[in-house]
Amino acid sequence: MGRVTTRHRVVRLDGRHPEGTTAVDTLAVEEPLEIRLGATSYATTMRTPGHDLELAHGFLSAEGVIAGPEDVVSARYCTGTVEDEETGLARNTYNVLQIALADSVPPPRAGRTTVTSSACGICGTDAIEALRRDSRFDLRADRTSVAAGTVLGLPDELRRAQRAFSSTGATHAAALFGSDGELLVAREDIGRHNAVDKVVGWAMLSGRRPATGCVLMVSGRIGFELAQKSVLAGIPVLAGISAPTALAVRTADETGLTLAGFVRGDRMSIYANSERILRGRH
Amino acid sequence: MGRVTTRHRVVRLDGRHPEGTTAVDTLAVEEPLEIRLGATSYATTMRTPGHDLELAHGFLSAEGVIAGPEDVVSARYCTGTVEDEETGLARNTYNVLQIALADSVPPPRAGRTTVTSSACGICGTDAIEALRRDSRFDLRADRTSVAAGTVLGLPDELRRAQRAFSSTGATHAAALFGSDGELLVAREDIGRHNAVDKVVGWAMLSGRRPATGCVLMVSGRIGFELAQKSVLAGIPVLAGISAPTALAVRTADETGLTLAGFVRGDRMSIYANSERILRGRH
Repeated sequence: MGRVTTRHRVVRLDGRHPEGTTAVDTLAVEEPLEIRLGATSYATTMRTPGHDLELAHGFLSAEGVIAGPEDVVSARYCTGTVEDEETGLARNTYNVLQIALADSVPPPRAGRTTVTSSACGICGTDAIEALRRDSRFDLRADRTSVAAGTVLGLPDELRRAQRAFSSTGATHAAALFGSDGELLVAREDIGRHNAVDKVVGWAMLSGRRPATGCVLMVSGRIGFELAQKSVLAGIPVLAGISAPTALAVRTADETGLTLAGFVRGDRMSIYANSERILRGRH
Repeated sequence: MGRVTTRHRVVRLDGRHPEGTTAVDTLAVEEPLEIRLGATSYATTMRTPGHDLELAHGFLSAEGVIAGPEDVVSARYCTGTVEDEETGLARNTYNVLQIALADSVPPPRAGRTTVTSSACGICGTDAIEALRRDSRFDLRADRTSVAAGTVLGLPDELRRAQRAFSSTGATHAAALFGSDGELLVAREDIGRHNAVDKVVGWAMLSGRRPATGCVLMVSGRIGFELAQKSVLAGIPVLAGISAPTALAVRTADETGLTLAGFVRGDRMSIYANSERILRGRH
């Protein structure tokens, strides 16, 4: 849709021009996507436009609303329009995606972030237990292995796939690789959760779940929710350039997910289920 | 509460140890905070424990649920307990915050992310218009100015305040500075929105809104929601080490917020309302 980046005039200061010069900068586009389920507005997320169908599938799967692509009967953009600022013509915003769920899908709880918990015992353990219970795929039975050298090469591959980042510096990226390092899909988004949702949605729509033999590589920090998305998609190895949180590590420990962080140059730290990463001189 | 970091055994690989060595790493703690309004669970956010009262105030203000601290009658942690993994003793999770709103506060819409829009016209312009309408403070009338050299010094100040980041690499930070560069408050969190919510909550609880004469400095990328939080708190200048998105820039343009990005070394780019940043040799 050509809406991933835009241009804007800025005042730029540096040591040689402390008074500032004007320049034109490339910015990452950020627009809301409203996901409607039937007649109800379910959620609105700020995202980089494009790959919205994948985003919606990945997001709804992480939310526990859908279990697979068969749960979505149809998805279409609403036909409503706004006046284009530049041309004055009516244009579709492509910011509202209307999804019809199969009759067999239980209606989701109202308000996606409203966690209903009857007791005051909300804690990380509960969340991990619920995740283990709800996941279709048991990573502990997954026999994927990948050479450490392959994992160490993924950050460069990810960076090469980040077209919007190189011009804007504002997008995160996520990519799915085969265990031989082959790039299967890469997605960029201003939100790191969205980038992963798009990759997971792609895997779902391509019939690649569980993603046995795959590595999910992410550009950002690895929190609980990214580990959760990996587990729910049946991706056995999650690797990132930055740090994981303690809860992401516990989640990985207890679900069988291999988790590697600080993958930079010839270094990485493996936080959980390190046996999948074949080390030494291969 | 001493729950900001924790330790975990890792396998660490580098050029000299391609087969890996075991080491102990410091991780950032991530736990859910459930915010209850009366008897209803309103939202659960993954966060770094600590400063939860500030987080709740900043969050509920950004959500439009409360307009000021007078809208919160009381806030307390639920007394429910879980069994501590290490000691086996019952302990409070401090993960559920029960908030009583004043009778005068209209009950919030169910489901915080459910944006009710009657037409299909959801777009950035709508969001900015709603923000302008809902904000108590008009930044266009704010006469704050700050020397460019002062802004250029803020990243180092922010980094010095980031204790958890230096040991974990996993936290974001936000801080409020006076226009002379004096640090007023700094907060860290695994979520960059949370870090800003904590700072805004602090400003609200300290009676410092609108935060005239202040600069909000953030460690992460600047999206629409961060610009929105700044506007709603009456903070006239928002600066960051990384890139802003196009919608954050438009929001700043149209609300009177000064927005500076890529503040690094002797450089920065000013995207909107540059007149507040005094340039040249001061």
